[in-house]
Amino acid sequence: MGFLKTKGEIYKAVEDVDVGPNSNQFYLTANVKAPRMAGFLVKVFAWLLETPIFGSTMLYFLKRNNLIHKLVTFAELQESPLYVPLHYYEGGKEEENQSGTSPREQVRQALECMVAPIKDLKSFSRWSILDYSTAYNSKVITPTKVMERFLSAVEQSCTPSMQMSFFINFDAHDILTQAAQSTQRYQQGEALSVLDGVPIGIKDEIDCMPYPTTGGTKWMHKVRQCKDDAECVKRLRLCGAILVGKTNMHELGAGTSGINPHHGTTRNPYNIGRIAGGSSSGSAAVVAAGLCPAAIGVDGGGSVRMPAALCGVVGLKPSFGRVSHSGVLPLNWTVGMVGILAGTVEDALLVLPKLYFPLLKSPRPMPNIRLAKYGEWFNDCNEEIRVCCSRALEKLRDNYGWETIQVTIPELEVMRLAHYVTIGSECSTSIGPELEKMNKDEVGWDARVAVSVYGSFSSQEYLNAQRISFNINEFIIFKASQGTALVRYQIAGNFLGLPAITVPVGYDKSHLPIGLQFIGKPWDESLLIHIAFSMQALCISQHKKPEVFWDLLAS
Amino acid sequence: MGFLKTKGEIYKAVEDVDVGPNSNQFYLTANVKAPRMAGFLVKVFAWLLETPIFGSTMLYFLKRNNLIHKLVTFAELQESPLYVPLHYYEGGKEEENQSGTSPREQVRQALECMVAPIKDLKSFSRWSILDYSTAYNSKVITPTKVMERFLSAVEQSCTPSMQMSFFINFDAHDILTQAAQSTQRYQQGEALSVLDGVPIGIKDEIDCMPYPTTGGTKWMHKVRQCKDDAECVKRLRLCGAILVGKTNMHELGAGTSGINPHHGTTRNPYNIGRIAGGSSSGSAAVVAAGLCPAAIGVDGGGSVRMPAALCGVVGLKPSFGRVSHSGVLPLNWTVGMVGILAGTVEDALLVLPKLYFPLLKSPRPMPNIRLAKYGEWFNDCNEEIRVCCSRALEKLRDNYGWETIQVTIPELEVMRLAHYVTIGSECSTSIGPELEKMNKDEVGWDARVAVSVYGSFSSQEYLNAQRISFNINEFIIFKASQGTALVRYQIAGNFLGLPAITVPVGYDKSHLPIGLQFIGKPWDESLLIHIAFSMQALCISQHKKPEVFWDLLAS
Repeated sequence: MGFLKTKGEIYKAVEDVDVGPNSNQFYLTANVKAPRMAGFLVKVFAWLLETPIFGSTMLYFLKRNNLIHKLVTFAELQESPLYVPLHYYEGGKEEENQSGTSPREQVRQALECMVAPIKDLKSFSRWSILDYSTAYNSKVITPTKVMERFLSAVEQSCTPSMQMSFFINFDAHDILTQAAQSTQRYQQGEALSVLDGVPIGIKDEIDCMPYPTTGGTKWMHKVRQCKDDAECVKRLRLCGAILVGKTNMHELGAGTSGINPHHGTTRNPYNIGRIAGGSSSGSAAVVAAGLCPAAIGVDGGGSVRMPAALCGVVGLKPSFGRVSHSGVLPLNWTVGMVGILAGTVEDALLVLPKLYFPLLKSPRPMPNIRLAKYGEWFNDCNEEIRVCCSRALEKLRDNYGWETIQVTIPELEVMRLAHYVTIGSECSTSIGPELEKMNKDEVGWDARVAVSVYGSFSSQEYLNAQRISFNINEFIIFKASQGTALVRYQIAGNFLGLPAITVPVGYDKSHLPIGLQFIGKPWDESLLIHIAFSMQALCISQHKKPEVFWDLLAS
Repeated sequence: MGFLKTKGEIYKAVEDVDVGPNSNQFYLTANVKAPRMAGFLVKVFAWLLETPIFGSTMLYFLKRNNLIHKLVTFAELQESPLYVPLHYYEGGKEEENQSGTSPREQVRQALECMVAPIKDLKSFSRWSILDYSTAYNSKVITPTKVMERFLSAVEQSCTPSMQMSFFINFDAHDILTQAAQSTQRYQQGEALSVLDGVPIGIKDEIDCMPYPTTGGTKWMHKVRQCKDDAECVKRLRLCGAILVGKTNMHELGAGTSGINPHHGTTRNPYNIGRIAGGSSSGSAAVVAAGLCPAAIGVDGGGSVRMPAALCGVVGLKPSFGRVSHSGVLPLNWTVGMVGILAGTVEDALLVLPKLYFPLLKSPRPMPNIRLAKYGEWFNDCNEEIRVCCSRALEKLRDNYGWETIQVTIPELEVMRLAHYVTIGSECSTSIGPELEKMNKDEVGWDARVAVSVYGSFSSQEYLNAQRISFNINEFIIFKASQGTALVRYQIAGNFLGLPAITVPVGYDKSHLPIGLQFIGKPWDESLLIHIAFSMQALCISQHKKPEVFWDLLAS
């Protein structure tokens, strides 16, 4: 009934409203426009409301005449809902950065807890953050030199023969300015942190100056201006990281292929004829191609872990609420989380925005970890992937004695649907009003389909989805579960707010990477990283070099 | 489209599902039934989805074919949603009952903090809980004798000339058994608490053995069996309180008049030609009429405070989450709270289910409290009420020096609508599936209208309501606000989860009571009760006896 649509109220931000006695706020008297009825009339009214089509139409006008459409349905607000998942608070307040311990010292402590050699020199591996840091500190190379190589690589990736579509926006001048400042800091022996001078890509769903935030669209930045760095970007900037531009993504995060009609489809560095996965397609691909040791993504339904798995890198989605979402496009409110794509588990650990976290405090020898797998879920993929992932779990058992037990997780398909209803309802509520104002031609066709479906859910559907969430949450009572490939496997992390990490564990016949995902308990990233690091240590010798790769630190 | 309705999935309770490897849970493979399309076809599909009527119909079938209707929309679950209001956790964990301090000692400590004489002997006052306790302990009367008088009074209230409709269910045998046990405890000097032998009514929205829980309907108890006491009832029973039956209420709490087509309309003890207000109509009326010093209600939109104000008693709605809702009909999940109706503020304090809470810790002399009032809101009522409430605030200023400052609260009407969308959506999601199964004839007409409207909200409407909640919450930054009369004034307490209390402050020309409401900050019931107690002390000398009144302790 768009043609009958009431114009929605546009609410001022709270800080712009005067609440003193002389405020110019208008006192709106309650004005209930419903027939006053009793006896027989109430009966007729109830009966009419219950008729299939006429009833809906009456309800439509009742809601419109009573200002529900204007003040609620089509309202435009800047606030998120007041409601958050129950276990959001289980983690309690974030521990403060242990003052007195320098970031460098914290990293040293963190790495000291690790169990295996980080690098097997015989096998392929990407340069890690520590490699950059070491190279800069030992004056082997400067950040400026590295970023010149970076820019030439990006230029090369844009040539017609490659068309990798890594970035939506990058500004060579801004990048070289950051690099020059970092170079100067190293010359003066004043590096800000182990991240100083390290190139990091930012998904174009996250505010990062001086770029607009497009969300993979052609229009978002026209209605929502980027005025400041997002909180997570601010922290990286304070660490001296070089923010190398806005990586490509699926339009509005509304798909998992990374096929973007406006900014090009990100190609998979392992096979440029294949997709990189999505929605954080560019962030995964730049890490895989050696352009950045790490990049930032956002994961609302596997959007960090899926492209990570497809591009053979590590993808970490922390617990719901772990990283501030201030300055991230509000494409949803209860399932999304800023995540990290990195070449190695330890790099993901180093980037988790407040560097101190999570120090692995587990003692050596490692605790006896028990993994849980739901066989039907685990095996619901092709033979090659199944064998590869099973072998990976066997390695964990053979090397560390960690057994994998069999469990049954009911309602997985229900969870997928309930998650879809949740993310869809939240997305259409959040960006619907802006989208309505746009010329339809500016919106990609599959985003249009998604938005049509997203807007169709009732409050019952949304609320039942949240009850399903409670129901399933009760089942996820085990240490860590795992899946392998695509969206179905990723949802538990988002819908239940659980932390999850994807680690590359092998390759299929066509040399495309295979990722294995571990899901942990809320607020227990430490154990999860511990497991992922051990997994990586056992698989790293098999790592293969992608078809498209640049070596920025080569001497 | 009820005629096309898919049967919804009925989810087992979590504890009934086996999650071991040999579970009989069926693994449901994802089965996405949507046309696979690219290029031109996607465009046609998007275009069709965007057409007003055909689009909605397509979406209906897409949702149905993809099991969204079966697994989400029409699903039947026992769980609440996983989401709770943000400030739910601000109160932190409930402090434990200070062990080592007996309930009696705690009450003594609490009363010691109070500021004014509890009773002005010249004026009318109801017997308080301490009056009962003193009478029992000093052997002036026994619980059995009191409950015999109670039963005879209730019998009298049911006569055709009175038809007070206080209770939906009460069982004389059960009441006398409880009374006999209490009498025996007093004889043996083993009273369980100050509540031992004190009659307390329970709103028929709360489980209390041996009664069915009707929720004011003719059908609820047929589809939902009451198998145990609700948590709050359990605690009262452990204190020795005599649970005197299930008080009348507006059907499903879906109205505020207390007019109930199935169980009769509760009459106002101050004027039996007037309503008692609702939805906790019976609980307010039994306290007003002297049958119980206190009764339990549930307040989802003023349902405790409105009938309290109309019946000239105290109505307390604690902060959201303060009292366990286990065993309370889930008519909503985010706005309702168990509340207390009592003759005096100190009785409300004594009943707050864990007796220890809230001990008033404020020092003497009292802190300098500042009240805030929004003039336009405060004055939006008839002249008599306005004058009476203004005078009450002047008394607070003159006697204690507490000034009332002027503020502006924006978006009050918005809050009313957003609250309506919230409670409506939650109610229809929760009881919709049961209601669908009922014979329509068993549902009252105005409940049918309410349920039709409740079921019409979209997920956008629900989510925007929660964003409005966040928005308004930011405005409620002052110490205490107040309103006077009906539903509009009550909503802030529910929608924002704030504690609120109504105190009788006078009477209008027709001798009907006038209540003044104070709203506090979340988890700050202590200050609120402090204010209410002071207010009561200044007004108690004007208290008037209702038209209908029984004196159960009369010697």
